[in-house]
Amino acid sequence: MENLENSTDCKETVSPLNNSGSILNSTVSHHDGKAMGFVLVHAGAGYHSESKAKEYKHVCKRACQRAVDRLRAGGLALEAVTAALIELEDSPFTNAGTGSNLNLSGEIECDASIMDGKSLNYGAVGALSGIKNPVLVARRLLSETQKGKLSAGRIPPCFLVGKGAEQWAISHGIPACPTEKMTTKFSLSGYKRNKRKMELAEQVETKRKRQSCGHENDFGCLEPVGDIMVEGEENNSACLDTVGAVVVDRDGNVAAAVSSGGLAMKHPGRVGQAAHYGCGCWAENARDVSLYSTAVSTSGSGEHLIRTMLARECSTAMQAENAHQALLEAMQNKFISSPFLAGEDCVLGGVIVLRCCTCGEAQRSEDIQALLVEFLWSHTTESMCVGYMSAQDSKPRTHISRLPPGAVAGQSLAIEGGVCRLGTVSD
Amino acid sequence: MENLENSTDCKETVSPLNNSGSILNSTVSHHDGKAMGFVLVHAGAGYHSESKAKEYKHVCKRACQRAVDRLRAGGLALEAVTAALIELEDSPFTNAGTGSNLNLSGEIECDASIMDGKSLNYGAVGALSGIKNPVLVARRLLSETQKGKLSAGRIPPCFLVGKGAEQWAISHGIPACPTEKMTTKFSLSGYKRNKRKMELAEQVETKRKRQSCGHENDFGCLEPVGDIMVEGEENNSACLDTVGAVVVDRDGNVAAAVSSGGLAMKHPGRVGQAAHYGCGCWAENARDVSLYSTAVSTSGSGEHLIRTMLARECSTAMQAENAHQALLEAMQNKFISSPFLAGEDCVLGGVIVLRCCTCGEAQRSEDIQALLVEFLWSHTTESMCVGYMSAQDSKPRTHISRLPPGAVAGQSLAIEGGVCRLGTVSD
Repeated sequence: MENLENSTDCKETVSPLNNSGSILNSTVSHHDGKAMGFVLVHAGAGYHSESKAKEYKHVCKRACQRAVDRLRAGGLALEAVTAALIELEDSPFTNAGTGSNLNLSGEIECDASIMDGKSLNYGAVGALSGIKNPVLVARRLLSETQKGKLSAGRIPPCFLVGKGAEQWAISHGIPACPTEKMTTKFSLSGYKRNKRKMELAEQVETKRKRQSCGHENDFGCLEPVGDIMVEGEENNSACLDTVGAVVVDRDGNVAAAVSSGGLAMKHPGRVGQAAHYGCGCWAENARDVSLYSTAVSTSGSGEHLIRTMLARECSTAMQAENAHQALLEAMQNKFISSPFLAGEDCVLGGVIVLRCCTCGEAQRSEDIQALLVEFLWSHTTESMCVGYMSAQDSKPRTHISRLPPGAVAGQSLAIEGGVCRLGTVSD
Repeated sequence: MENLENSTDCKETVSPLNNSGSILNSTVSHHDGKAMGFVLVHAGAGYHSESKAKEYKHVCKRACQRAVDRLRAGGLALEAVTAALIELEDSPFTNAGTGSNLNLSGEIECDASIMDGKSLNYGAVGALSGIKNPVLVARRLLSETQKGKLSAGRIPPCFLVGKGAEQWAISHGIPACPTEKMTTKFSLSGYKRNKRKMELAEQVETKRKRQSCGHENDFGCLEPVGDIMVEGEENNSACLDTVGAVVVDRDGNVAAAVSSGGLAMKHPGRVGQAAHYGCGCWAENARDVSLYSTAVSTSGSGEHLIRTMLARECSTAMQAENAHQALLEAMQNKFISSPFLAGEDCVLGGVIVLRCCTCGEAQRSEDIQALLVEFLWSHTTESMCVGYMSAQDSKPRTHISRLPPGAVAGQSLAIEGGVCRLGTVSD
């Protein structure tokens, strides 16, 4: 494997958009190194208070490191993305796995999915209780799909929900985990506080017309959209976020995954975008050299992300020439202004996106086969916490992206990203 | 409302395709009349024995009549499509609602979804037990979405599964129905027979590599893909099919719905395409005059229909000039030869498709604003049972479309369709 110099080149621009007062932030950085892969993770699009920033960054760092450990050991994108998700799920500060939001009945019901860009196989679980790492069940469903038919020619399932999903997981060697072990003091205190707020709101709201957007609600929103905490709720420890990751490995394979405890105080049985094909995550290897491999993971208001099929839409958009512009337009036209959300004046969500190709820079002939990895994040929420790392980096980088002061969450967007050029594998 | 003559004009062509030996059947019929709408229903893509053809046709007829009754009473597409689905679910001969396939545990778990082309709202239920008409729950979820936020700014769910879905339905006034009432002698005897076959197959197969396609299985497949019964199982009364409908109303609004008991002997908690956004059904009103309104409902192997997102793909394809050619290419390129099903040599499914526009025929100036409705069905399964009716027709028409002798199910396709021109509403 050839050695490449380690150059880093950053610039930042801020340019307001014409059509909606949205804000565009752009960060471009270059990382050269051996082509062992790259990971980008998120700990949710929502509102990350300064006081909790440190915890969110920490978990993103650990998740990046886990994925890179796998990549360095020769693991493929699918293994690396699973490793990142396990770390993200295990954090009590994220709304996934341990520490997930509690539903109306005070129970944990998780959604998760994973997609392999190479095989295009997919696995998902919805409303799953009693399993510490929902992503492992999604991953196992994906693996079983690849083994072909079950007995008597039955097609293996790619999507299981509820009690059946739990039983399937246990019968496939994934250990059960008592709900109490997955419930944290944060999720429990958040549940109690939310329940009181909801009861109060319901007493007053019964006499009112339902209101059109969560942020217009006077009664102290819970997590009104997806996993979002509204401004002014800094001390609400129940505000926890969906997690996800996208990875490209040394062979240029991409994979994506997402995991969520879902909306706080959701109705039991509610399944959000994290378990929905095309909505929570997407990964698709390039089928020919003229195309990019793409991987996407989303976070935010589950129902809005489902109806706009945002993960797949962003993946499709990323085949355009300019990744930054393409994602900006996708977030604007396929999400904020989507005809599928007509009438919604508050569309909250975020995506992490990765695309790569082997079309290296022509002026550097020795790297002509380098993997060019472009990675971006964009959100309409107050903030989004991301981390990223290439297998050559000594440590991960994390960042809490925020809408600029004055920008209206749900109507504006922030977009940032970078470029990482990975050298060819010569062995 | 103006009176139009009632002319019918049919032709049939049979033309083999070059690329895969697929067979193309084309039926074109014209129905003129008042623009009160049109309905197309299916009772599944699978294998319909001659002996059962009568029952399948009967239920399709009744479903068409129910939908047309609603249209004639001034009902919108969403109401009409719901009425059709209730009739289809209530038949003990279909694999939806009453008479659904039993899962591995001998229980009924239903999937259903509905989409409104006007609002683009959507509702779905997965792995739902204990409710006679799953489509009613999906429809109610859709309606609740349209009412805006819940208390404390919570977004209403669009997709509920399992026990939570059942509880939600009951709390919204939809009566519970004991599973015993939904189980028929057909579904029960089929379950017992399938269970014996499966046990036998598993005893032998444990020593074998898993096989690549259901029809290669020597042990008598159950319903190897979705709701399909393989050839030679004519007397297997457990072979029952997913149902669906697409409707256009007098205002040109489209709606689509689908309902399924899922794969026989499926794992509890398995959710198929009928509950999957973009996979089971799709409906989208034209957003400008240059576009068509489209509605699609699918049937077949759930996992294959999910991974190819067939309903939405067909809807998108239907914006091409030639509906027939567009559907043919979509079924060939986005289903049979889909990169998402690479390695699958047996891809079984079917769709019903409707598209309409107000771009009437120029040579008949008096009908210049007529609704032109093109309706098609296509399947890779041995057969597909459909019914259709315009609000002007005195009775519905039904048809069991079959692959021509020698065509290989899962690798070839049949496609048929018609055209119905509905006059303008002048009152």
